[in-house]
Amino acid sequence: METIQLTKNMPVSSFHNFADDCIGTGRMGLALQRQYQEQLRLVQEKIGFKYIRGHGLFSDDMAIYQEYEDETGQKVAEYNFTYLDMVMDFYQEVGIKPYLELGFMPQKLASGDQTVFYWQGNVTPPRSYEGWCQLVQATLQHLITRYGRAEVVTWPVEVWNEPNLPGFWQDADMTEYFKLFKETFLAVKAVDDQFKVGGPAICGVDDVNWLQQFMAFCHEEQLAIDTVTRHFYTISDPETAGHYSYVTLREARESLTELEISRSIIDDYPEYRGLPMHITEFNTSYRPDSPLHDTNLNAAYIAQLLSRLGETSASYSYWTFGDIFEEMGVPFTPFHGGFGLVANGNIPKPTFWTFAFYKKLQKNCLYKGEHGLVTSDGKERFAGIFWNLTAEAMSFQLDFPEEVEKWCITSEVVDQQTANPLQSWHDLGEPANLSAEQRALLQQIAQPKVTTTVTSDSYSFTVQPHGVHYFEARPRKQTSDRGYDYQRVLAGR
Amino acid sequence: METIQLTKNMPVSSFHNFADDCIGTGRMGLALQRQYQEQLRLVQEKIGFKYIRGHGLFSDDMAIYQEYEDETGQKVAEYNFTYLDMVMDFYQEVGIKPYLELGFMPQKLASGDQTVFYWQGNVTPPRSYEGWCQLVQATLQHLITRYGRAEVVTWPVEVWNEPNLPGFWQDADMTEYFKLFKETFLAVKAVDDQFKVGGPAICGVDDVNWLQQFMAFCHEEQLAIDTVTRHFYTISDPETAGHYSYVTLREARESLTELEISRSIIDDYPEYRGLPMHITEFNTSYRPDSPLHDTNLNAAYIAQLLSRLGETSASYSYWTFGDIFEEMGVPFTPFHGGFGLVANGNIPKPTFWTFAFYKKLQKNCLYKGEHGLVTSDGKERFAGIFWNLTAEAMSFQLDFPEEVEKWCITSEVVDQQTANPLQSWHDLGEPANLSAEQRALLQQIAQPKVTTTVTSDSYSFTVQPHGVHYFEARPRKQTSDRGYDYQRVLAGR
Amino acid sequence: METIQLTKNMPVSSFHNFADDCIGTGRMGLALQRQYQEQLRLVQEKIGFKYIRGHGLFSDDMAIYQEYEDETGQKVAEYNFTYLDMVMDFYQEVGIKPYLELGFMPQKLASGDQTVFYWQGNVTPPRSYEGWCQLVQATLQHLITRYGRAEVVTWPVEVWNEPNLPGFWQDADMTEYFKLFKETFLAVKAVDDQFKVGGPAICGVDDVNWLQQFMAFCHEEQLAIDTVTRHFYTISDPETAGHYSYVTLREARESLTELEISRSIIDDYPEYRGLPMHITEFNTSYRPDSPLHDTNLNAAYIAQLLSRLGETSASYSYWTFGDIFEEMGVPFTPFHGGFGLVANGNIPKPTFWTFAFYKKLQKNCLYKGEHGLVTSDGKERFAGIFWNLTAEAMSFQLDFPEEVEKWCITSEVVDQQTANPLQSWHDLGEPANLSAEQRALLQQIAQPKVTTTVTSDSYSFTVQPHGVHYFEARPRKQTSDRGYDYQRVLAGR
Amino acid sequence: METIQLTKNMPVSSFHNFADDCIGTGRMGLALQRQYQEQLRLVQEKIGFKYIRGHGLFSDDMAIYQEYEDETGQKVAEYNFTYLDMVMDFYQEVGIKPYLELGFMPQKLASGDQTVFYWQGNVTPPRSYEGWCQLVQATLQHLITRYGRAEVVTWPVEVWNEPNLPGFWQDADMTEYFKLFKETFLAVKAVDDQFKVGGPAICGVDDVNWLQQFMAFCHEEQLAIDTVTRHFYTISDPETAGHYSYVTLREARESLTELEISRSIIDDYPEYRGLPMHITEFNTSYRPDSPLHDTNLNAAYIAQLLSRLGETSASYSYWTFGDIFEEMGVPFTPFHGGFGLVANGNIPKPTFWTFAFYKKLQKNCLYKGEHGLVTSDGKERFAGIFWNLTAEAMSFQLDFPEEVEKWCITSEVVDQQTANPLQSWHDLGEPANLSAEQRALLQQIAQPKVTTTVTSDSYSFTVQPHGVHYFEARPRKQTSDRGYDYQRVLAGR
Repeated sequence: METIQLTKNMPVSSFHNFADDCIGTGRMGLALQRQYQEQLRLVQEKIGFKYIRGHGLFSDDMAIYQEYEDETGQKVAEYNFTYLDMVMDFYQEVGIKPYLELGFMPQKLASGDQTVFYWQGNVTPPRSYEGWCQLVQATLQHLITRYGRAEVVTWPVEVWNEPNLPGFWQDADMTEYFKLFKETFLAVKAVDDQFKVGGPAICGVDDVNWLQQFMAFCHEEQLAIDTVTRHFYTISDPETAGHYSYVTLREARESLTELEISRSIIDDYPEYRGLPMHITEFNTSYRPDSPLHDTNLNAAYIAQLLSRLGETSASYSYWTFGDIFEEMGVPFTPFHGGFGLVANGNIPKPTFWTFAFYKKLQKNCLYKGEHGLVTSDGKERFAGIFWNLTAEAMSFQLDFPEEVEKWCITSEVVDQQTANPLQSWHDLGEPANLSAEQRALLQQIAQPKVTTTVTSDSYSFTVQPHGVHYFEARPRKQTSDRGYDYQRVLAGR
Repeated sequence: METIQLTKNMPVSSFHNFADDCIGTGRMGLALQRQYQEQLRLVQEKIGFKYIRGHGLFSDDMAIYQEYEDETGQKVAEYNFTYLDMVMDFYQEVGIKPYLELGFMPQKLASGDQTVFYWQGNVTPPRSYEGWCQLVQATLQHLITRYGRAEVVTWPVEVWNEPNLPGFWQDADMTEYFKLFKETFLAVKAVDDQFKVGGPAICGVDDVNWLQQFMAFCHEEQLAIDTVTRHFYTISDPETAGHYSYVTLREARESLTELEISRSIIDDYPEYRGLPMHITEFNTSYRPDSPLHDTNLNAAYIAQLLSRLGETSASYSYWTFGDIFEEMGVPFTPFHGGFGLVANGNIPKPTFWTFAFYKKLQKNCLYKGEHGLVTSDGKERFAGIFWNLTAEAMSFQLDFPEEVEKWCITSEVVDQQTANPLQSWHDLGEPANLSAEQRALLQQIAQPKVTTTVTSDSYSFTVQPHGVHYFEARPRKQTSDRGYDYQRVLAGR
Repeated sequence: METIQLTKNMPVSSFHNFADDCIGTGRMGLALQRQYQEQLRLVQEKIGFKYIRGHGLFSDDMAIYQEYEDETGQKVAEYNFTYLDMVMDFYQEVGIKPYLELGFMPQKLASGDQTVFYWQGNVTPPRSYEGWCQLVQATLQHLITRYGRAEVVTWPVEVWNEPNLPGFWQDADMTEYFKLFKETFLAVKAVDDQFKVGGPAICGVDDVNWLQQFMAFCHEEQLAIDTVTRHFYTISDPETAGHYSYVTLREARESLTELEISRSIIDDYPEYRGLPMHITEFNTSYRPDSPLHDTNLNAAYIAQLLSRLGETSASYSYWTFGDIFEEMGVPFTPFHGGFGLVANGNIPKPTFWTFAFYKKLQKNCLYKGEHGLVTSDGKERFAGIFWNLTAEAMSFQLDFPEEVEKWCITSEVVDQQTANPLQSWHDLGEPANLSAEQRALLQQIAQPKVTTTVTSDSYSFTVQPHGVHYFEARPRKQTSDRGYDYQRVLAGR
Repeated sequence: METIQLTKNMPVSSFHNFADDCIGTGRMGLALQRQYQEQLRLVQEKIGFKYIRGHGLFSDDMAIYQEYEDETGQKVAEYNFTYLDMVMDFYQEVGIKPYLELGFMPQKLASGDQTVFYWQGNVTPPRSYEGWCQLVQATLQHLITRYGRAEVVTWPVEVWNEPNLPGFWQDADMTEYFKLFKETFLAVKAVDDQFKVGGPAICGVDDVNWLQQFMAFCHEEQLAIDTVTRHFYTISDPETAGHYSYVTLREARESLTELEISRSIIDDYPEYRGLPMHITEFNTSYRPDSPLHDTNLNAAYIAQLLSRLGETSASYSYWTFGDIFEEMGVPFTPFHGGFGLVANGNIPKPTFWTFAFYKKLQKNCLYKGEHGLVTSDGKERFAGIFWNLTAEAMSFQLDFPEEVEKWCITSEVVDQQTANPLQSWHDLGEPANLSAEQRALLQQIAQPKVTTTVTSDSYSFTVQPHGVHYFEARPRKQTSDRGYDYQRVLAGR
């Protein structure tokens, strides 16, 4: 049993909690779908992220870039913002702003045929950089006209996605990417200098080299970039069987080193020192078919990461909010190891609650350990999260300051016995297509167990294996109505 | 541990389950209120009763009966159905039909000033029986015009409420009540012979005498009544302190004797033998300030009653669905011992779930005992409810038929550790006026704990003190998607 | 045809448009009702008032003031805020703040039995001023605790209603009212000095005398009152037949003199000069059974008043927003001459649109005449309202500034041919109880006729008898899509 | 002025009104979109069709047909019903059943690469007829499992779409289509003999030859087909400019001849005589870029067609309900000449109301002419529709039976002055992307003008050019409340 002593005047550090800054999404075209929207609505109601980032802004299903032949037979570009407006209007409806990833390449503007994913995003450089920059600028101008300059310049801009992988950028051609970056950077700033623009959006493959070269390039070209962006995944060795991948989690500590290295590469340049680093994607597994994503273990692991990511990074975007997602095809079953916080059928997964809990923390950090953290509002309200990545139960005791006579504690528990819809889905026989009744059952089972307790001095609790435990404590004042005697009620007479 | 053996061809009896037939309500005028409507909407969504019965159809806040002076100075009656339509339209909206209790007396039609309740229902006979009968007939005619004859004649009619109490009927004057009954009975039948009309709506005070005399009166007058109605409460000796009454529960068995006696009084008349007996009110305590109503003990006790009431009665109407109720004034606090299944703030109380569980039972009864019952649909689906009125945990084991290889069991548990919003409200300090946050917390805490399990042959479970345990069992068939291996998911690799 | 010339640099005056400041309501207890809430929701969606004022905060159906006997047999006050919170929570939901009229007297705190209205508000002085002041203070304190001090002190406070009528204040006893005013004023200010408190809430009977004496009293007692409040109705000689009153409208000009006199009585005191005068009730007829309220004539007359009321007064509260209202009993029919902007069945009356139109005006007044006004936003957007109180059509022409090539004009028309649900209700046979189909039809018919036009220089239009005509004009820019030719579409080939 | 005499016992014919039987839709994958669903919800609320038919059930965006390699390297089919269920669940939600058009070909099952439309539906025969039949059967079996056999067998089945066009079926190869038809027909009937199966779904190109050969083929092969299906469009000579096509309407009479010929080809076979002919697509223009679709002229023309189509056909499905549609790409503007009854932005077009009006007609036809028809319910309720395809106003007079004293007439008018959102959109400058305010304005302007009138004997009205006029007449009974005098209200005193 670990004991944590909370006192009135204990030293506090400020807690860099950016858990709600940004969230990932399937390609933008999917945002037209009703189920996508229902899932995001649920996420926004219970968590409430500020930004949303995903691929496919310029992919052909969004239909923005079009061409026609004029009378002289010349190709002329024209832009269609019908679907873009539907998506952006919806984002406004649910109170989220886009984090604009500029990509992939419209077929008609592409220099080649290489595509990525089941949904075939073209990943080749533009056949005309001028055409590309005009597309970027026309799109930003349209957004400014529709949503107002003051609003739109708060939408961060990122150039492309994971150019260090040949699958996402033809030949992973670094020189070509730097060209794309510079051209795009200047084009965006020409629309409005207040836009925050960043890159290189790399994943953890040859990342040290890429980042070093990218920073050197920006330095040489004197590009006053606003953010540096990268991705972060923490598994190794996926093994595939049928539609699924089984993976091995790495130690969080070990994984986090990657970020510290990135941080120091940036900070080596005086002009970029302290520049916000944005992890524009992170998760455990980088595959959308890893059943790990649906488990309580994933929730506990992410709880641990969220306690640490703010140390290096100003934003970290869990990849993704929901399971309407088609990178490897349309999922066959509601639980299929997708990235989402929400499974199809609008069922929150355990990791959903990890984010909901982080959202409720207070601003001062009183305690941060391997298995939990405690925050306060600087007055008499405490909130904390504890997690257990091991296979055995762990116990904790919190001692409260003495100044208060009674505390009312509300706790929310997510572990294998509660808020484990994956297990219930398995118990039901792993149905591929949920009936309305099954869906309702799983939604109900997916809720955390909420309890209240009254204590005068300390709060003891046990976190089960793979569990996440949230609590908040407030001073309790009893205001019984005339004649009401709870002890007598309990006694039944 | 009690063991119950379920086999494929075990003998079944049909289960007279009328738990969802009728529900009580505060006076009709309250049905105009938004919170009343929200509570009833919740009840209808999760349980779904057929009929709703309460007082005050003709009370002055419904404003139906009006008079004016014509040119000659004569009083002329006129009827105002503005509010009645609002109430009935709402009942249609939520799919419930009124069980029409005819009463109380409009002030202008009353022969005296005596009133009952904080809301002052006039309980005196009409100053003109002709005026009364015209009021009844005009109301029924209006309803027929608006909602259709076929529909309205399915709405049962009951004459007055508890005339055997002087508080509800001036002097508890039996002769006068019989007059009222006969006049009203004939007036209703004159509108349409298909109406089902009953009385005497007595409570358990001098009830044997009243019922004997009532049956004798109907027999002599050759009134072809359609139902006999009475009330049923099961506590004794309320003690009042401040705004509250603390009561003692009687043994269910002992209380049920009352109903058997009533049944036999009716059956003594050949022409009335087997006539439906309707318990148009029942509950534990007959006072709306008994904290007992809000407890898990109440839920378990009602679970026991519901297993037995169908043996004598064709309908039994829990008094009441919600806590928007003013008989003793407006409640000061959300939990105040009101009759409702739902506390103010739209928080389901434990007894709410007892009804929700009975609603889900199947038609065949396989087992009925002191602490539980098991039903089936005649095929391979089982559902049962178990309860525990004692202070110690009780364990049960159900053995399933061998023909099926695996069963998936869903259980829902309501006991002092789960679905006990009263305790959490106490933990919060018994606030009189819930904040939005507190209301949401209590609504969440009020949900049963739902779990799923897989078993091959038997299901063992423990019912905690004052707990109610619902389960259903269905054959399980696994249909894993290609490559999905749940054991591997659990193993985390 | 009147012609109005709008030019780029014409002189403007600022338009004191307080049409949306405050709206009246039936007694507070009615705010618990669903239909009341639906009507207010509609009003807030389409118009959006800041404040709502009505009677009955302390009347017995709100159940705030209660008493019990302690062990020594002494009466002790206790307060029940259950219903008050429901009402205030709802007001918050629809974005309206209460204008707190303190009254009437709880039965148990009253010195006599005199009541007003069908719903029996007690209009006698308190039997204990101390008890009254404690009630007022406890209520304000409760509101501050629940809704926050910063919010609650923005809720204006008015002491009682129309004490100059014996029906509303026993004997119209001026001395007693002044006592009530002073005690209450001091009690409120003792809770928080920021509260804005006013009176004497008089109607137009002996109003000059009352106001003079009231101001003299405040002056002598050195009460730093924040507002002076009065009422304003503009008809004479109601004649009653059955449930209805037929009335005669006075000339607006003549009626408005009353307000100018009040204004000058206030301004005679140096310390009160320019003090905000609030008309806390106004309408044409002061009776809730005047069919005039439901007509297009009423809408046109109110349009005229709204152009002028800001000249003397800082707030003017139309009495009332809806027809859930019981002062003379429950209405028998949906159209019954009630005060409301909305008829029962949620049908907007013509006057509803007068307010909706005033809400859309711009801040600068370019033109104000007997029959209309024109406003602008100081740029190139114009909005105006014209009305016709005569029995003959009137025509107008607006000449726009030349700087703009094309104008797109949107107009909304409410007259006897359009947005006249009263006539359609009559055509349907004046049904007392609307079917769902009839209700939908009348809601549809109640909408203004909306049209768009394009013009290059001037806008001519005709206002039909009793019509109200709203328009707005904006510069038009055509952005045809490639190949779209509207003239060809019109030509059908 | 045309006068139509209605008498009590005039001869009636039964009116074959199948206007609400079926409606067309963009490809099934679009049914996942929120805006698609909002448009269909609007259509179902106001009109309410029974069936919905469109392309793309088996196209790749629905993701049903999948393949994988087994251990031996063999391709094995597997089926993914994730998206299909979402679509079908939604159809259930809004009360519409699918009319199952079997097509197009999944890429992996196709014998070639030819595609149709911007969204690239593969239109080649299956590379394996066995694989195709298994796909069809697996899909039907899945639907039966999920929605119940009794329900699913009421969903009509049609084999492919317009095989007589080379664009829709490779080489318009008749022999290959007949093979496809027979194989599919037998496969469907093998699942359940109750399925109603039909073809050949041809359009009006070489249609006589195709239909003759198809019937001969069925006759020879002794296929007991359930329906014969074809399409029907009524324009000629589209001329394209930019994104749009301008077309010429043919005389309705002339066009209808096509259907009579089809009818007689079918009826020539004794075993097929009287077999239901289903027009599974019809509209004026067959291009989704014809501004004609958005006009009042289109509404009037369709009104005329709907009066006649039932003479030859048992179903006629307007192509389509809404403008979420991608056959020629994503529309650039809300009004773009799409097929839909509803424009993007959820704005009903004039033709929407034509269907809404036909839906409200009664079962007996009293009068049918070139410009209108009148129906009755066999009692005292009349309903009719009149239209005007000319450029001059037309006047009509209806004389009612004398037995009734007063009639209340409700009329709904759609013409160029009212319910013409296209013109207002033009007035606004033809904006490509509607603001929320513009959308609300256009939705309001798109409503018909509704009026009521009272008459004692006849109803005269004028239909403006391109107008559609709906009316219904019912006997009027006045039930004035005591004291209510409408004439006095009108007189204003």
